[in-house]
Amino acid sequence: MSIETKEVPGQPALALEAALGADLVLGGADVARYCSDWHGDVATGAVAVLRPRSTEDVSACVRACAALGLSVVPQGGNTGLVLGAIPDRPASQVILSLERMTRIRSIDADDFSAVVEAGAILSEFKDRVEEAGMFFPLALGAQGSCRIGGNVSTNAGGINVLRYGMTRELVLGLEVVLPDGSVFEGLSTLRKDNRGIDLKQLFIGAEGTLGIITAVAVKLMPQPEQVATALIGLNALDDAITLYRRARRDCCDLMSAFEFMPPLAFTLAREAIPDLAMPMDGGYPAYVLMEISGSGLIDIEDLMQRFLGAVLEDELVVDGVIANSRDQARKLWLFREGMNEGQAKRGPHLRTDVSVPLSRLADFVRDAEAAVTEALPDCTCVSYGHVGDGNVHLNVLPPGDLPRAEIDARIYKAKTVINTVLDTYRGSVSAEHGIGRLKKPDFEARLPAVQRKLLNAIKTAVDPTLVMNAGCQLNYTGDSGQS
Amino acid sequence: MSIETKEVPGQPALALEAALGADLVLGGADVARYCSDWHGDVATGAVAVLRPRSTEDVSACVRACAALGLSVVPQGGNTGLVLGAIPDRPASQVILSLERMTRIRSIDADDFSAVVEAGAILSEFKDRVEEAGMFFPLALGAQGSCRIGGNVSTNAGGINVLRYGMTRELVLGLEVVLPDGSVFEGLSTLRKDNRGIDLKQLFIGAEGTLGIITAVAVKLMPQPEQVATALIGLNALDDAITLYRRARRDCCDLMSAFEFMPPLAFTLAREAIPDLAMPMDGGYPAYVLMEISGSGLIDIEDLMQRFLGAVLEDELVVDGVIANSRDQARKLWLFREGMNEGQAKRGPHLRTDVSVPLSRLADFVRDAEAAVTEALPDCTCVSYGHVGDGNVHLNVLPPGDLPRAEIDARIYKAKTVINTVLDTYRGSVSAEHGIGRLKKPDFEARLPAVQRKLLNAIKTAVDPTLVMNAGCQLNYTGDSGQS
Repeated sequence: MSIETKEVPGQPALALEAALGADLVLGGADVARYCSDWHGDVATGAVAVLRPRSTEDVSACVRACAALGLSVVPQGGNTGLVLGAIPDRPASQVILSLERMTRIRSIDADDFSAVVEAGAILSEFKDRVEEAGMFFPLALGAQGSCRIGGNVSTNAGGINVLRYGMTRELVLGLEVVLPDGSVFEGLSTLRKDNRGIDLKQLFIGAEGTLGIITAVAVKLMPQPEQVATALIGLNALDDAITLYRRARRDCCDLMSAFEFMPPLAFTLAREAIPDLAMPMDGGYPAYVLMEISGSGLIDIEDLMQRFLGAVLEDELVVDGVIANSRDQARKLWLFREGMNEGQAKRGPHLRTDVSVPLSRLADFVRDAEAAVTEALPDCTCVSYGHVGDGNVHLNVLPPGDLPRAEIDARIYKAKTVINTVLDTYRGSVSAEHGIGRLKKPDFEARLPAVQRKLLNAIKTAVDPTLVMNAGCQLNYTGDSGQS
Repeated sequence: MSIETKEVPGQPALALEAALGADLVLGGADVARYCSDWHGDVATGAVAVLRPRSTEDVSACVRACAALGLSVVPQGGNTGLVLGAIPDRPASQVILSLERMTRIRSIDADDFSAVVEAGAILSEFKDRVEEAGMFFPLALGAQGSCRIGGNVSTNAGGINVLRYGMTRELVLGLEVVLPDGSVFEGLSTLRKDNRGIDLKQLFIGAEGTLGIITAVAVKLMPQPEQVATALIGLNALDDAITLYRRARRDCCDLMSAFEFMPPLAFTLAREAIPDLAMPMDGGYPAYVLMEISGSGLIDIEDLMQRFLGAVLEDELVVDGVIANSRDQARKLWLFREGMNEGQAKRGPHLRTDVSVPLSRLADFVRDAEAAVTEALPDCTCVSYGHVGDGNVHLNVLPPGDLPRAEIDARIYKAKTVINTVLDTYRGSVSAEHGIGRLKKPDFEARLPAVQRKLLNAIKTAVDPTLVMNAGCQLNYTGDSGQS
C-alpha cells in the first residue's frame, strides 16, 4: 500500500474523500498550511488533511485511514516546538486536525470542572471559564492559538506549573478515539476515582501515538482576585535557589510564578520592544520575576511587601520592585516575553528545554554555560526558566552574521555540549516540550533498554499496526519484546 | 504446574528455598500472619512468604516464582481495605512482603524530595521527613502500619487529598521490578520531565498487577507551621457544599481538610471514647470539620477567625468552634476517628467508599440514604467523608443483635441499593480504596468493553504469563483482544 501511495499520490486522498465525504477531507494546495511548524523551520506534506466535526467523525477518519494503510498524525493548534504534529512520511501520512471540534460541553462552577472538546483554543476556553467566575490555570505563550487537546497530548507546562502542576494534574477525564476507531469514554469529572489502573494517564503526553484525544474534563479553580508581581535583583543565580526555598515557606504555597532571567534579558527584550522602560536603576547578575496570587481574605499585596521587605533586610536580595498596577505587572512580564522575541531577532539559535534537580539548577547553568563558552567562544548563552520546576531554557545564540551552515554547525555543537553536561546531572532533555520528532534522537539515545521494551510492548498492545502518529516519540518496532 | 502444586503443597516452598536461600523464604505456620486482612474478615493461605532485603532480591524472587509457575502477591503493611494483598489462590500464590525494605535512601530538603524504599512505614518516613524540616502530606488512619509502596500501589487517598492530591500527585519517580524480573529504574526526582509517555503512571494504582514497586521518589513540602481547626454546625448537608465553595475562595486554597459528618458521629465516637466532651452545646443536622494550614507569613488562625465570622454573619453556618490549642484540635479529630471505632463496636456493617461529582454530594447522600432506609428500615445509615473530593463513606449498620446470616444479607442488600443510586450519579464504586479482590465484581460489572479490552491488552503486554497478583482487580484473560 505504501509503495502504491508513493507512486500515485493523489489516489489515497480520493479514496478518503470517497469514504468520508468531501466536507471532511482537504487535499491539494490547502494541505500546505498544516504542514509547516511554528518556527517555519520545517515544511513537509501530507496525503490529505482530515477535519472531523465530531467524535464519530474522528472514529470514521481513523477507520478509513487504517483501511488504506495510512498513518494518522493528529494536530491541534500546531504550536508545538518538537514537530509532534507534522508528518515525516508525507506520502503515507494524513493530518487529522481537531480545529472544528471547539465546543465547550460544560462549565460547572459548582463542580469546579469543565468538559471541552480537543479543538478549543486555550485562551478562548479560559475566557469562557473566567466569565463563569472560575479559573483554568494553564498558561503559556501560545495560548492564543494552541488547542486544549494538544495541551493534554503534550502534557503542556508553562508559567503556572509551580502552583497548579503540568496539564496532567489538571485533567479529570478524557475521551479518546483509539487506533481501531473505538471510543474510550472516560469524561468523568469525579475528583477521586481509584478504580485500579488509570488508563487516561497513558494518553497524556503520548502526543497522539496511542489514540486521538477528542474531549477533556478538567479541574477549575477559584479565580485569583489578587495578583502581586515583583522583579527582584540578586547577586547570583545561587541566591535565586535560596530565595525560592524561602518563598515557598514564607508565601505558603501561594506563589504562581518564580522565573529566573539573566541581565541580558533586558537587552534582548528592548531589542524587540524598544520603548520598554528599565524597571530598576541598577544592574544585577541575576533576576527573579515572582508572582503571588490568591482569592478571598488574604491580602496578597501585603504578603508580597512583607516578604520582599524581609529578604531585603536579610540581604538575600539586593533590589526589588513590586508592580503597583495591572499595567505595571504586564510590563514586568513583557521583559520575560520580549526576551524571546529579541532572541528570534538575532537570528537562528539553539532553544533548549531541560530540567535538573531543582537544588542543582544554578550549578547546572554555571557548568553548561562554561562548557558552551569554552567550545563556542563566539556564541552567547541566555539561560532563563522556572526555578521551582528545575526547568532551564539554556539558549545559545551564534553571531547573526555567519553563513547559515556555520550557524547550524554551532547550534548542533552547542546542543551536544549542553546534553553532555546535562547527563552528568541526570537531567531531562525535555522538561515540558515533549519529544515529537525533533527530540527523538536525544530521547532514544538515553532510553534504558527496560523502558524501551515496555514502551514497545504498550504501543503494540494499543496500536498493533503502528498507525497512530508513526515516527513520533520513538521508532517503534511492533515487537512487544516479550519472548 | 498448578495441579502439581495443589497435590504436593510443601514442594514449591522447598523449591523456592532451594532457589532463594532460607533467609528469604518463610513457610509453614509463619505464613498465617500474612494471610488475614486488616478487619479479620478473611483468612487465607499461601505457598510461602518471600521477604527480600533488596531490589535484586525482589528480582530473584519474581524469577524463581515464574520458573515454578507461581503467582506473586506483593504485600506492604497489609492495611488495605479491598483484599488486594491477600491470595485468593493459596495453592499457587506466594506472598512477597516488602517489610524488610525500609531504607530511606535520601531526604533532600533543598530539592523538596525524598527517595524511600517500598517497605518503609508511612508514619516513620513522615517523622524522618519532619526532622529534616520538611513535610510529606499523605495522611491516613493506617499510617502507623501501612508501607509507602502499598500507598503508591493503591494510589492511597486520605485526609489531605483536598490540598495535596492523591498519592499519584506526590510521586516523582518509581523503581519497579517487572514480571520478567527486570528492573524499571525511574527513581528521578525531577519536578518536570516530559519525555513522552509517563510509564510510572501505569504502576500507580495497579495494586501490584503489573510489577512490584521497590522504591519511590516523592515530593516534599514546607512544614505547615500553623494549623487552624474548626468544627462547624450547619442546618443541612447542602450548606456544607455551599460552605466548601465559599471556603475554597475565601481561604485561598489553604484548606488541608474539609470533612462532613452527621450528628450520629458524636454518639458513635462517645460509644468508643466515653469521656470525649461534646464540643458544642447545640445539635445540628450536619457538621463540617475544617482545617486550614500553612507556613510563613500568613496568620492562619486569623484567617480562620475571619472566615468563620463572615459565614456566621451571613448565616451560612449556625455554630462553630475553633480549637485554641493543638490538644483541642486533636480532640476535634477524635470525633472523626472515634466514629469509626464506634461503628466497629456496633458489629459487622457495610463500609462504602464512593464518589460523585462534588456539586451533587448532598443530593446523593439524601437519595442513597432514603433508598437504604426504604429497603432496610431497621438499619442505620452513617454518611461522612471528604466534601472537596466528592467522596462519601456511606456506611450501613444493621441491628447488632441479628444472627450473622441476616446481618450479611442486609449488608449485601444495602450495597446493591447504594450502587444502584450511585450509578444514576455516574459515581465511582471506589473513590480511594482501590479494587483488590473485594470490589472486583462491582468494578467489572461497570467496566465498559473498550476499557476492558485496553486493560487486557496492557496487562498481557507487561505481564504475558499473568503472574503478577493474579485475581486482583480484574480476571484477565491473557487475550489482548486485538484481532
